Amino acid sequence: MGQIQDVFNSNEKYVKDYRYSHLKPMPSKKIAVLACMDARLLIEDILGLSIGEANIIRNAGGIATEDAMRSLIVSHELLGTEEFIVINHTDCGMQKFSDEHIRNNIKQKYNKDPSELQFYTFADLEENVRQQVEKIKTNPFIPKDIPVYGCVYDTQTGRLRRIV
Amino acid sequence: MGQIQDVFNSNEKYVKDYRYSHLKPMPSKKIAVLACMDARLLIEDILGLSIGEANIIRNAGGIATEDAMRSLIVSHELLGTEEFIVINHTDCGMQKFSDEHIRNNIKQKYNKDPSELQFYTFADLEENVRQQVEKIKTNPFIPKDIPVYGCVYDTQTGRLRRIV
Repeated sequence: MGQIQDVFNSNEKYVKDYRYSHLKPMPSKKIAVLACMDARLLIEDILGLSIGEANIIRNAGGIATEDAMRSLIVSHELLGTEEFIVINHTDCGMQKFSDEHIRNNIKQKYNKDPSELQFYTFADLEENVRQQVEKIKTNPFIPKDIPVYGCVYDTQTGRLRRIV
Repeated sequence: MGQIQDVFNSNEKYVKDYRYSHLKPMPSKKIAVLACMDARLLIEDILGLSIGEANIIRNAGGIATEDAMRSLIVSHELLGTEEFIVINHTDCGMQKFSDEHIRNNIKQKYNKDPSELQFYTFADLEENVRQQVEKIKTNPFIPKDIPVYGCVYDTQTGRLRRIV
């Protein structure tokens, strides 16, 4: 069973102390965060956010993919967020490997052609943050006046540094 | 400036108490979670997870989109996760609105054609969880023997209920 039983046992404890049934779907601080899925990023703790305050979108790298754009559009249109924060981080797996490396690995392993898969690995961390911010700012279905902050999170210090 | 200055002020405090620089990118519990971006879902708290233990992927609805699949493949191949947990939840915005509703809204607002955009709204919560689990299980670049658990999270009680 791996870890799953532990997870459900922990959830029993969470249920006992739960006192958030009054919260609404709309994030009270009107913030949407787009960040990497990395296990070391406790987004709420890093940003000092509490339950109910922000939408949190995460994927490998913290990339403004089509799906992240879908989520940001939903966050703004349906849930009323008005500020976006993009977080990439130091020591990211997506900076250590190339798309070609990943494709070669899975091609050999599964004996199928992954050539259409894009993984969005990147070489320059700050430049990558700038590109994601730019993609969001130029999306035709995101208001031009929404602030989009681009940041690098340092996994060695816990510090969030603003790039854009 | 909205909330962004508060966020950076909070981060200053986080940095002072930071003691996680020893953690590696590989999640120590070898878990990857795919969940909704909803502001009421504190994933680590719900599942009893600590920093460094799991990759956390989030988007609008907790949908196994192409991008979520990309992230799960990266999580397994590069970061060694071996169990996946999919979490959708009650009172989800993606269950209250239709794709057509969202497309109509943004079409009028931005005067551009969003007909190619898919939002993955859904009608049946449990069925939606089953579909996401199925999409992951049948992906050609995910090992057939990886357990994929599908769950519904209740925002009224904090309880996680296993569906698949």
